Amino acid sequence: MELDKHKIPQATAKRLPLYYRFINNLHSQGKLRVSSKELSEAVKVDSATIRRDFSYFGALGKKGYGYNVEYLLSFFRKTLDQDETTKVALIGVGNLGTAFLHYNFTKNNNTKIEVAFEASEDKVGQEVGGVPIKHIDSLEDEIDDIAVAILTVPSSVAQGITDRLVEAGISGILNFTPARITVPDTVRVHHIDLAVELQALVYFLKHYPLENGDNEA
Amino acid sequence: MELDKHKIPQATAKRLPLYYRFINNLHSQGKLRVSSKELSEAVKVDSATIRRDFSYFGALGKKGYGYNVEYLLSFFRKTLDQDETTKVALIGVGNLGTAFLHYNFTKNNNTKIEVAFEASEDKVGQEVGGVPIKHIDSLEDEIDDIAVAILTVPSSVAQGITDRLVEAGISGILNFTPARITVPDTVRVHHIDLAVELQALVYFLKHYPLENGDNEA
Repeated sequence: MELDKHKIPQATAKRLPLYYRFINNLHSQGKLRVSSKELSEAVKVDSATIRRDFSYFGALGKKGYGYNVEYLLSFFRKTLDQDETTKVALIGVGNLGTAFLHYNFTKNNNTKIEVAFEASEDKVGQEVGGVPIKHIDSLEDEIDDIAVAILTVPSSVAQGITDRLVEAGISGILNFTPARITVPDTVRVHHIDLAVELQALVYFLKHYPLENGDNEA
Repeated sequence: MELDKHKIPQATAKRLPLYYRFINNLHSQGKLRVSSKELSEAVKVDSATIRRDFSYFGALGKKGYGYNVEYLLSFFRKTLDQDETTKVALIGVGNLGTAFLHYNFTKNNNTKIEVAFEASEDKVGQEVGGVPIKHIDSLEDEIDDIAVAILTVPSSVAQGITDRLVEAGISGILNFTPARITVPDTVRVHHIDLAVELQALVYFLKHYPLENGDNEA
């Protein structure tokens, strides 16, 4: 049976970077094999889900042995295109943007923030976390080879900046503003809203009594 | 048929705060009714999903009319316990923590950051976004009546702080550190890892060709 990548459920796809990171850690520690139970404890995903996720990629493990770390690592590296770095631009160097710039994305990842943009003159020209900060007016001149933008601007300017990013040919936007942005069908947006995440946790606390091994979402 | 809240899929539950916010906005604008198509465009969730989500709560809409905004608003306010505020503590006032403190959670929400904790002496005693910053050493003395903690500390101390939060009786943790933390089954953890979110977007860009209306996850 041929592997059809489009058949992987999106929920599974979202867990791949997490699996990759921990398998990479195990490999650095010199571990040769790992059981789905150990993996489950490390990544906080129940082992049935891990086995189901892995099954989409074919038979990666053996009963009573577990998974070969080296094999898993090379598999995930290939699947996640770890040998190809995606260039990222950060828009908006406020507190959240600065947190992103200090976050060491390149350590276990295939993404690199190449450039940041900011409207306030006192930040332009500086470097944060090794990333140069340029003026937002020069956005279109500087993102020719950049595929992804992280949006950490005030809500009031989110759509305007988005329109400029789309016009400049960006493929994907990680939207951290509370604003819901509108893009053409050719651009992918993932939205992470801090208030919604907090409210969702509170809702789950009130309405979903915890059961064994079910306390992580 | 009686409403059994435990039957609501978790994916639906996660969208409730989002629906609530936009219905609240519509209400403020004086809108009396809204179609699932309009709602879909506002919240960027496809209208079939919205109709399915709403169906778990009974027949909230009428064909050809749409949904009554006032009814939806009172329904969601009740469902999300908007009249009861959950007290939140923020642990770690770095860039990400500061972003949280400046974020106006109380505007449309039922959560309020009451207190923040920090290890570095020069921040202790100050206020950010109206929230007092206390020393991490006093954690146990200050979170008696607090249900939820937002964790924005360095990875290296995440588990140690988590153990103290658990010991002090916290019910839920929103973990923004890259560390996967271990808690007893009685505590709920939601984990948002910035690097994983970025990597997931890149993976989706490469492997999930966009189709109409499918560009938001």
